[in-house]
Amino acid sequence: MTVSPFDHPLLSGLLGDEEAARHFSVEADIDAMLGFERALTEAEAECGVIPRDAWAAIEKALGPFRPDTAKLRAGVAKDGVVVPELVRQIKAAVAAPHDAYVHFGATSQDVIDTSLVLRLRQVVDHIGLLLGENVVRLTGLDLEFGSRELMAMTRMQPAVPIAVAGRIVSWRAPLEHHQERLNELSGRLLVLQFGGAAGTLDKLGDKAPAVRAALAAKLGLADAPQWHSQRDALAEFAGWLSLVTGSLGKFGQDVALMAQVGSDIRLSGGGGSSAMPHKQNPVKAEVLVALARFNATQLSGMHQALVHEQERSGSAWTLEWLILPQMVVATAAALRLAAELAGQIESLGH
Amino acid sequence: MTVSPFDHPLLSGLLGDEEAARHFSVEADIDAMLGFERALTEAEAECGVIPRDAWAAIEKALGPFRPDTAKLRAGVAKDGVVVPELVRQIKAAVAAPHDAYVHFGATSQDVIDTSLVLRLRQVVDHIGLLLGENVVRLTGLDLEFGSRELMAMTRMQPAVPIAVAGRIVSWRAPLEHHQERLNELSGRLLVLQFGGAAGTLDKLGDKAPAVRAALAAKLGLADAPQWHSQRDALAEFAGWLSLVTGSLGKFGQDVALMAQVGSDIRLSGGGGSSAMPHKQNPVKAEVLVALARFNATQLSGMHQALVHEQERSGSAWTLEWLILPQMVVATAAALRLAAELAGQIESLGH
Amino acid sequence: MTVSPFDHPLLSGLLGDEEAARHFSVEADIDAMLGFERALTEAEAECGVIPRDAWAAIEKALGPFRPDTAKLRAGVAKDGVVVPELVRQIKAAVAAPHDAYVHFGATSQDVIDTSLVLRLRQVVDHIGLLLGENVVRLTGLDLEFGSRELMAMTRMQPAVPIAVAGRIVSWRAPLEHHQERLNELSGRLLVLQFGGAAGTLDKLGDKAPAVRAALAAKLGLADAPQWHSQRDALAEFAGWLSLVTGSLGKFGQDVALMAQVGSDIRLSGGGGSSAMPHKQNPVKAEVLVALARFNATQLSGMHQALVHEQERSGSAWTLEWLILPQMVVATAAALRLAAELAGQIESLGH
Amino acid sequence: MTVSPFDHPLLSGLLGDEEAARHFSVEADIDAMLGFERALTEAEAECGVIPRDAWAAIEKALGPFRPDTAKLRAGVAKDGVVVPELVRQIKAAVAAPHDAYVHFGATSQDVIDTSLVLRLRQVVDHIGLLLGENVVRLTGLDLEFGSRELMAMTRMQPAVPIAVAGRIVSWRAPLEHHQERLNELSGRLLVLQFGGAAGTLDKLGDKAPAVRAALAAKLGLADAPQWHSQRDALAEFAGWLSLVTGSLGKFGQDVALMAQVGSDIRLSGGGGSSAMPHKQNPVKAEVLVALARFNATQLSGMHQALVHEQERSGSAWTLEWLILPQMVVATAAALRLAAELAGQIESLGH
Repeated sequence: MTVSPFDHPLLSGLLGDEEAARHFSVEADIDAMLGFERALTEAEAECGVIPRDAWAAIEKALGPFRPDTAKLRAGVAKDGVVVPELVRQIKAAVAAPHDAYVHFGATSQDVIDTSLVLRLRQVVDHIGLLLGENVVRLTGLDLEFGSRELMAMTRMQPAVPIAVAGRIVSWRAPLEHHQERLNELSGRLLVLQFGGAAGTLDKLGDKAPAVRAALAAKLGLADAPQWHSQRDALAEFAGWLSLVTGSLGKFGQDVALMAQVGSDIRLSGGGGSSAMPHKQNPVKAEVLVALARFNATQLSGMHQALVHEQERSGSAWTLEWLILPQMVVATAAALRLAAELAGQIESLGH
Repeated sequence: MTVSPFDHPLLSGLLGDEEAARHFSVEADIDAMLGFERALTEAEAECGVIPRDAWAAIEKALGPFRPDTAKLRAGVAKDGVVVPELVRQIKAAVAAPHDAYVHFGATSQDVIDTSLVLRLRQVVDHIGLLLGENVVRLTGLDLEFGSRELMAMTRMQPAVPIAVAGRIVSWRAPLEHHQERLNELSGRLLVLQFGGAAGTLDKLGDKAPAVRAALAAKLGLADAPQWHSQRDALAEFAGWLSLVTGSLGKFGQDVALMAQVGSDIRLSGGGGSSAMPHKQNPVKAEVLVALARFNATQLSGMHQALVHEQERSGSAWTLEWLILPQMVVATAAALRLAAELAGQIESLGH
Repeated sequence: MTVSPFDHPLLSGLLGDEEAARHFSVEADIDAMLGFERALTEAEAECGVIPRDAWAAIEKALGPFRPDTAKLRAGVAKDGVVVPELVRQIKAAVAAPHDAYVHFGATSQDVIDTSLVLRLRQVVDHIGLLLGENVVRLTGLDLEFGSRELMAMTRMQPAVPIAVAGRIVSWRAPLEHHQERLNELSGRLLVLQFGGAAGTLDKLGDKAPAVRAALAAKLGLADAPQWHSQRDALAEFAGWLSLVTGSLGKFGQDVALMAQVGSDIRLSGGGGSSAMPHKQNPVKAEVLVALARFNATQLSGMHQALVHEQERSGSAWTLEWLILPQMVVATAAALRLAAELAGQIESLGH
Repeated sequence: MTVSPFDHPLLSGLLGDEEAARHFSVEADIDAMLGFERALTEAEAECGVIPRDAWAAIEKALGPFRPDTAKLRAGVAKDGVVVPELVRQIKAAVAAPHDAYVHFGATSQDVIDTSLVLRLRQVVDHIGLLLGENVVRLTGLDLEFGSRELMAMTRMQPAVPIAVAGRIVSWRAPLEHHQERLNELSGRLLVLQFGGAAGTLDKLGDKAPAVRAALAAKLGLADAPQWHSQRDALAEFAGWLSLVTGSLGKFGQDVALMAQVGSDIRLSGGGGSSAMPHKQNPVKAEVLVALARFNATQLSGMHQALVHEQERSGSAWTLEWLILPQMVVATAAALRLAAELAGQIESLGH
């Protein structure tokens, strides 16, 4: 079943990004969720919330633990989230009397949101590297061709000649702004979610702050009060992803326009046609436009999901799951393709 | 790799629909594409465009033909479409001298768009059945509870008592309108795409109309001039999908609102919580809202794709691939969930 | 205050359409709302629901009636809708004892939705005419230049030469489909909304069907049960508007691409530049793309508004007001500009 | 002509914000554009690019200058932008020989984009104040009611009791994040646009950097290279606007849900109904949801406009005009309504 091109065995070769997609596999999600449960147990034991024996038993059980995914699937279908069934399976693996300390004081949303953030931390690293590579490639083009001339086009009409550097800076400068923005928003994004049933960590009593701080430290995330119904950091990140693909879409559009006729650009390795052997289609450039328009479309849904009812909205939360992972992969794919496209540019200007 | 919940081994149990998703698998796509090539060859042989020997050879080769999907993936990455590499593999299987008649006069878009339409025909049948089932279920609720009363809520405030039938009709009547709309649009949607390199079927000369008509008849699609850069029927269908999920989203929202407090509705089989064993979450109702907002978001992208440059837009076309299959599966999933939710309603009104 | 370009004294010269905008003026809205109240009174008197004296008194008072718009504005700010204050003013003009029969059995939504539909009927006529004019103009271009040749462009690369007629049909055929669609949807759109407080017309007792039928007949709308929480016909119409602008956006995009270089098109009357006197910018073509992308964006919001809570959603309903009128005017403006652009084409092909 | 509710004499009382809308009036735009031309002339005279006599003559002519708006409207319709005709009128007022120095070295986009930024600077101040007021009001509610209890609702079902403070922090904390974000982005947004015909300031020779710096200083904007085809700062700002309305939409949604039944909230001053005198509709709360969904819809269009062709895209630029001003006013209106709604809350929790 491969409904999304990002998951499609054939299309993901063009439209996907393996490294980014890997963070949204079931395996990566379960690993991160189990990492949450393990760190929680450890933090609670250290803070004296649960017995150290329980910690040891849970730690031991989680080592070889492999969930029954058919039952997890059925659990999602019934509960809307995977966690109740996952916790049930972990408890069965731990067995009495320590099973009562599994997932102690936590709720499904803590596990799922923190798992997401843990994986977004790796995504941020990956995308940050790709972004840096694009800046480097465009700087290389500038050094090589920047002092040449091309005809500026305003309102799709020839205007006056400009330096090639002027066109390149319009591709690179926004990427540098995006690097700056990513630094700013990361601190708001990479934050532990831990609130318990309704956000109050009521089962942890006065030890709640200490457990939360310890849990955050173990997971390498920032410590802050629960944000289960405050989705602004995720919507902000989605906006950033779409800013990146939008800027790359402009690059792609410009390349495709330049490649139509004339000699302003020379590209290697265009795509072939099944009907016209003479064609060299600027496939990567076109796909950059498609991915830009895709993310611009999706972003709207992430902002609709800000209207998150009360302490937890099943519908707004589910809507995020349907959208954010694909925006991440679209962005990584666009960055990969843009770097490749920059590498295909053999000549710019005259 | 499971970036989209519609492809996700766990989440698709809730958010997906196996029957709808099946039509977007690689296998289904390749089957439909090979079906196109086979029917094309037959039509061209019958019309005297290619030798009957060539038809026999191609028919024979296509029987056991299984493409090398790793090479197809690489082909998509290079060409932006799978067809050039697929045709290359078919030609290799057919071998000289008949290989020259494989895919004769056709272009990638003919194969890909027609493959889509062939599968949408099955989707239309499947979704049509699900839609009918929902109408039946809601009619059943009306018969059982329609004459009871509930408190109308206007602007989220109690208004005056109304018959339960009044609420139910607001869920069912739009579905009946959608049935009518589907009938109207199907004739525009289920149409062969066949135009050759640039829409003129130039390689077929004066036999082009006859070949096109024969091909359409063999595939069970309507015959009409190529529509390769006219995407209105696909955008119209996407709008219809979102109308359906929007109406079901209203049903879900109403159920979730009714289930909050009081006794206007009694539901069986709610979802469990990992932190609060007493809870019975209206999971299916919430997901209907999520899928409605998802499709409403996606629809914008399908309409952006109407701005399809000249004879073929790589970017607008690719954008459709990123969006339409997911809209189809979201709609099928919503119809499945709504029928299930209707079945969970044990009581309405007083 | 001119926040929207459609209302802007300068920008609406380019982006607006006076005839379409006129139907969304306060004057047109109040006229239509008073027309509803007048017809309602007449229908209720004829059916014996209210005294004929009351009808006469209301009819007489409505003749010279001019609302106090400052108070209407304050009423909207308080009530969210204009009708409570408008009815209060009408009742004051009618005076006791007949004032009790003003707006009898109706609610705000009946007045506002029916006023909208009455004006959309005129919009449908206006836009239908503009659409027909575009078909005629494109047919004219086909007759004049259709047999010439131009270079087909696929994936923004030269493909093979095609007849100019092939390009023109890709502009015209979708418009003809839109004419067909408009016929189909008009019957669902141009329908009276009349349900009273919660949709049951409870104050009219067993005369409700007769009053509703008479009211519909007087207003020239179809008679059907209330649809106050079923917004599918409006979302469908919005989708149609965006299909139209999407098809015109493709026309505009193609013209702008052709006008870049070479001699495939010759346009008269391009726009001037403040810095480059030599330029002839294809302004109307560009604006067609902008309006297509605008409507594609807006459509998403109209589909979000399908999730209309219970018997009346203040938020989903208000969302429609923020979007639909602008989609109408954008579409009328695009049709006007496309017809003008077709008229500026002095030559196509070779 | 009042197509947009933000411009509508009646509806803007509810949905608009006069102070924000004022910055998008024709008068404000022309004032800002003339301010640009005046400051440009002064900067160019100081830097020795144009004669001081010319500066004096232009300064003198601009004092009493009032444009002919009918001709400006016609100019927009022809040129797609107002500047060519505006400059023509200014030149006529200045007369020979000094008229040659009007708008010297600048282009339409410099004037229009800088005018926008000058007005956004005031918008940022206005919205920043409204945001601060909301934080204060919510803090006041926290002080008054924070220690009471209410029933947490997760997935629209009663969960466990929480402190009222927990609900309020979910409304206030995102607003504090938005204050932080506004500080970060303002430096990227409030930047002079000045590049001349194709971004190179070619007419100013080696004095270009000095003129640009002086112009920025006079206008109180940051000095940076032209960004005419880099629209990321505007799209980022639009995202911020939608983050704000999204957070306020959650507040509105929560209030409307609480106001449905029971006694968790007591509101003063609800809206009246034309059919049901007993009702007190939570109008402002509902409108917050509508404005959140409106901006979430619009944001998609601002991101589509990032795909800005080459040195200047008529279509992407025009698309911004159709969207951004309305997003600003929607945000200001939402902030005003949210502050009023907070003031209507007479009691929270128990």
